[in-house]
Amino acid sequence: MPSSAARRSAGDANEATRSARKRAAILDAAATAFLRNGYRGTSMDEIAALARVSKQTVYKRFADKESLFSEIVATAVDQAAERVHAAALSLQDTGDIESDLRDVGRELLAQAMQPRILQLRRLVIGEAGRFPELGRLFYNQGPRRTITALATSFDRLAARGALRLDDPQLAAAHFNWLVMSIPLNQAMLLGEDEPLPSAELDRYADAGVRAFLAAYGHPRTA
Amino acid sequence: MPSSAARRSAGDANEATRSARKRAAILDAAATAFLRNGYRGTSMDEIAALARVSKQTVYKRFADKESLFSEIVATAVDQAAERVHAAALSLQDTGDIESDLRDVGRELLAQAMQPRILQLRRLVIGEAGRFPELGRLFYNQGPRRTITALATSFDRLAARGALRLDDPQLAAAHFNWLVMSIPLNQAMLLGEDEPLPSAELDRYADAGVRAFLAAYGHPRTA
Repeated sequence: MPSSAARRSAGDANEATRSARKRAAILDAAATAFLRNGYRGTSMDEIAALARVSKQTVYKRFADKESLFSEIVATAVDQAAERVHAAALSLQDTGDIESDLRDVGRELLAQAMQPRILQLRRLVIGEAGRFPELGRLFYNQGPRRTITALATSFDRLAARGALRLDDPQLAAAHFNWLVMSIPLNQAMLLGEDEPLPSAELDRYADAGVRAFLAAYGHPRTA
Repeated sequence: MPSSAARRSAGDANEATRSARKRAAILDAAATAFLRNGYRGTSMDEIAALARVSKQTVYKRFADKESLFSEIVATAVDQAAERVHAAALSLQDTGDIESDLRDVGRELLAQAMQPRILQLRRLVIGEAGRFPELGRLFYNQGPRRTITALATSFDRLAARGALRLDDPQLAAAHFNWLVMSIPLNQAMLLGEDEPLPSAELDRYADAGVRAFLAAYGHPRTA
């Protein structure tokens, strides 16, 4: 028979699970509401109703609509940027710069073009004039973080003579946008969320990497 | 003393001026309202009130909110793209590719970074999921038109041996985004409309042109 301490601890664990589940339900409902009705078009009341919890329950976990939305953006963008960030940093030790740059480019583009990330990007851009802190969060956790990691690696690669560049931050930004800009800007403006076939995305990424290496590669690698 | 025909014609001219003035007032009021309250947050009633005309007067000129907004986007983007388009096309006859590409790059970036164009771009991106025709109009009159003109010129320049490329459309898109992406994406996500100093924009444009020529220039020009 379980001791009262064990019973209490099992009870705590259940409570923690319930609480985590409620939190996840709120975040999920909020994401659905924001993407459907926009940031301004969504109220905490609607989010509570959609998550099937009380408004009080929502406010216990999130101070206001902005912190709720920030949490959604931060979680989604962090998740998308994580593998890209790791791959960008590990580039500095590459033995095959062309092949490894291609892997980073493909990963970067695949993550940025996920439907949910495209939708969030549109939403924060649409609201950036009025709520710049939402866009800033997206920018810092996404493009800025990736470009900084790439710059660190590019700086080392230039020191080893594998790249030719004076300004690693600039070269990293050029890499980032050479890989992403064509399909990303089309998706942004044309409102297309259907994922492009990954072979098509890979072609855009590879073309960006080729242009980057032609511009910044050592003659051996270009 | 003026004949009755002359009087009638002067009357017609006055009527035409009045009508043009009303139309301009409606477009101006609509742009203000859309940029302040978003596309969905703006009604034809508000536009009429802001323009100090009747709702009927608005509907006589514009079938619905969408055609009113389309007119605003088309006019603004056409105006911004016009000089870029001409400069991009005249590139094919250049005697100094580096200097002329730099002029095109600077013009392109200066136009894209105008506060009104940035605000409209954010607005159409924010609504592109629900109203893709608004974004499509922006994309076709802006980036697509510029890239197509650049591709025409790049194709000729490649034939003359001044550029090295297989795919003029791809090279043109790379040029476009190398020049614009860094400041444009920051402005989009960070919500900044204050025009950057033109010296700073020129540096971004020039850096994009340098990377482009290093990638696609003939060794003589790189």
